[in-house]
Parts: sequence; C-alpha cells; structure tokens
Amino acid sequence: MTTRVFVLSDHTGITAGSIARALLAQFPHQSFEMEEHPFLDSKDKVAAIVAEIERLNAEHHPPLVFSSFVNSEVRTLLAQACGSRLFDIFEAFTPPLEKLLGEAASPVTGQLHGIGNSGSYTARIKALDYAMIHDDGSITRNYAKADVILIGVSRSGKTPTCLYLALHNGLQAANYPLVDEDLETTRLPSILQEYKHKLIALTIEPKQLHRIRQQRRPGSRYASPEQCEWEVHQAENLFRKHHIPVIDTTAISIEEIAVHITAEIMH
Amino acid sequence: MTTRVFVLSDHTGITAGSIARALLAQFPHQSFEMEEHPFLDSKDKVAAIVAEIERLNAEHHPPLVFSSFVNSEVRTLLAQACGSRLFDIFEAFTPPLEKLLGEAASPVTGQLHGIGNSGSYTARIKALDYAMIHDDGSITRNYAKADVILIGVSRSGKTPTCLYLALHNGLQAANYPLVDEDLETTRLPSILQEYKHKLIALTIEPKQLHRIRQQRRPGSRYASPEQCEWEVHQAENLFRKHHIPVIDTTAISIEEIAVHITAEIMH
Repeated sequence: MTTRVFVLSDHTGITAGSIARALLAQFPHQSFEMEEHPFLDSKDKVAAIVAEIERLNAEHHPPLVFSSFVNSEVRTLLAQACGSRLFDIFEAFTPPLEKLLGEAASPVTGQLHGIGNSGSYTARIKALDYAMIHDDGSITRNYAKADVILIGVSRSGKTPTCLYLALHNGLQAANYPLVDEDLETTRLPSILQEYKHKLIALTIEPKQLHRIRQQRRPGSRYASPEQCEWEVHQAENLFRKHHIPVIDTTAISIEEIAVHITAEIMH
Repeated sequence: MTTRVFVLSDHTGITAGSIARALLAQFPHQSFEMEEHPFLDSKDKVAAIVAEIERLNAEHHPPLVFSSFVNSEVRTLLAQACGSRLFDIFEAFTPPLEKLLGEAASPVTGQLHGIGNSGSYTARIKALDYAMIHDDGSITRNYAKADVILIGVSRSGKTPTCLYLALHNGLQAANYPLVDEDLETTRLPSILQEYKHKLIALTIEPKQLHRIRQQRRPGSRYASPEQCEWEVHQAENLFRKHHIPVIDTTAISIEEIAVHITAEIMH
C-alpha cells in the first residue's frame, strides 16, 4: 500500500522535502506518494491542510508529515493532528538548542531553503551573470576576476557546475573548454598560464563521455569512442603534468562536484 | 563568545548545513563560526574529526555538531564524542520512522543533498542545455518543448529562475524578455500566443528594477526611473489583460520564485 507523505512549510519547504526524501529512501520496499505544500504562511492555509490531514486520518489513511515551521503554535496544531506521524525539523532541534545556548529562539522565517552557503543574493546574481558570460567558447575571458576556472573537455560537466557554484555559493566560476589544439601538446594553454592557481580540472570516463556526446551529435567524430578516449587521455596527461587538482565527474551529481570544488578552494 | 559549529556528513552535507543555518538564525544574539566537513566516508576521516572534537572539548570549547550520516555506527561514535551537542538528522528521525513503517532502515548514502525534486540527472542536464539555448534574446524559440515560459521585463529575474528550475527540477524553462516594442501595446507578442497556457509572468517594483539596472548600465535610459516605471506599468497591464499568473520577485529569492512556479505548474 502506498503511504501518502505531506511536506509542509511556511516557506519553500525545500529542506523539509530533501530530508523527507533522504529518510524515506532508507525504506526501499515501501511505496510513498509525496505532496508538497509550500508557503503555508497564514492561519487559514494551515487550517485547510490540518482539515485535510484529519479527513485522511478519519478514513484510516493517515499521511506521514514532514514539516518546517518556525511558528511554534503551528507546530502544536500539527502535532495534535498528526501525533507521532509528524516529523518537524524545528520542533526536533530547537528546544535542545535553546537549552544548550541558554536563550529562547526568536522565530525567523525563510532561512531554511537548501541553499549551500550564505553568499548574498546580489553576489549570487552577479556570479550568475559572470558564469553566463564566461561560459564555454565565449570570447570574453576576464579570468582575473574568476574565483575558480574549470577546465576539461567538452561535456565533462563544466557548465552546470559553474552555474551551480554561482547560484548557490555566489562564486564567480569561469570555464575553459580544452579543444583538440590544446590537447595536442602538454603545454598549458597560454591564456591560462597566469591563472594556474585558480584551475580545477574535471575529467570523465571516456565511455560515459561517448554516451553523452552521442546524444548530442549522434555518429559524429566528436562523439566517437576513439575521439573521447584520446581527448580524455591527453587532458589527464596535461592535468598531471601541471599538478592541477582533478575531479572525476563520471558517477557524481552536480552538487557533489560543487562541494568538492568549494572544499578544494578552502584548502 | 563565538561558538564553533561543525557540519559533518558522509556526503555533501548540503542539507545538514541548511538545517544548521536555519536553526542558528533563531539565535541572532549569539555568534557562530561554521565549518563544513563533507564526504567523511571512511573510518579514518571520521576518526580524525572525532579527535578534533575531543581536543576542543578538552579545551572547554566544545563545538556544536550538525550531521547527517546514514551509518549508525558513525552516529554512535559521534554521539559519544559530542553528547547533547550533536544534532544528527538521521538519528533524530530514523528510529521513529522505522517504528511507524514496521521495517528496519537500509543505509543508503547520498540521497540527502538539498535538491528540490526527483528529476533525474540526465533530465536536469538536458533542461539546463535548453535553458541556456533559450535564454534572453536568443534566436531559437523552440517553445513547443518548454515546460514553462517566463515573461517579464529585462532584469526581473527570468534567467536565474530558468537556470534554477532546470538544475533543480529538471524543468525546461524558456524565457521571453518583454522589450519596448512589446510593451507599447497590450497585445500578447505573436510568438507567445499559441503558448499562452505555459506563460508565467515575473514582475518587480520599479524602484528595485532601477537599482538593479543602475548597477548594470549606470546613467542609461534603460536604467532610468522613468523607463523602469513605464516598463513595469505596461507589463503589468499586459499580464492582467491576458490573465497570466504573476510572481512579484522584488523581495524574494530565486528558490522562492522557483517554488512558486512549480506550485503554479502543478495546479
């Protein structure tokens, strides 16, 4: 039987949703149907969802409820409706924190939204503009202002990673695609030489690269197994020779790559 | 006195970090110094951080520790070192879930990383390519394949939102910038007419728009208060006339806009 799962929040509910998914993934034999209700920021909206939960309870299909509400009155209301089926992030952690810090919590809405760091909104938008302008193959190469420059062959994951770093970390990330001409030698492309300390390399298994390029330009030389094999081999030689830190993107997600990069930058 | 805060995870730690920030924001009179340690995925790495925590404890500067580990042995180790100063997401919620579901949890790493939905990796990359190709002012207008088309004046938030929707929700989001020519009438631009059901409008307070454009092109007609006022006024008339749902982006973040849009699409 499928269990209904509600994700409720007075704000985006992004983090509550992430936690729900992570926790439920531990029960692969069960079936869940998730429903997200963000921005429940008025008494009326909360009352409506509480009524829905009570209706399901009365029908003996009580939902699991994951929630994040800074307002403790709302948490109490939900607890009354959901009992032990409620998992509220603030309720679980705020009281012990208050005790440890010797201070009562002030309700602050809208801080809980899955964003990777405290980079200000303006910094993130500025970084995003930078990433868009300095993406693959662009003419502008204002690398002096880059926080990091990603290098790698085409489709090794540079663009999504740059955008993620901008959106989440407010980092100005540029990228430089290594083309055949760069790969024929083990010299670092001249434009990169003075920024060597900012370089992080992305690599990928040739087979995976072939699959990705095949979707993009089926049957092309660009997508051929031989070309992919050659490019990756040459690129890795270049990275090794110049001691550039390398991240293998084959089996990891964009957010994982981004966290590896921010960790690398901190070092 | 500043309290040191460790965010520890066997994976990215993105969600644990979000939770820590949200919870600590409730204590604005305290000062915290946060340190993130992702990818603690071996016994050695965990042992090293436990030793560091024990050293700080011995010096009477015990850190607060927020963590997400699927491995319950690691959680036990940390609990021994941190006592009541440990806030572990899996430890807090997994045992009651096991009880409710009548099943033991299987440890599954890497599910907890702040990503908004279950869109597959490939779908997200595909959506990102789409967003990049169909960004502001691009020539290609393959709107038939769009999941959503954002319209609004320049700098109302369309581009970052499209990229976020692609990266996080795997949604193919296109955007159409309303220029003077479009704003001189209340007719919907002809290219948009057959896709009216896909349109969501972004608007912004003229003063805020002026500030943003001023940073971009100081002193230009484009950035002038009068031009910003006129564009927003005309755009809002257009949205009203054609009953296009409108999101005001003035005071909200990219992720908030994105959640409003996904909620709108679900309706």
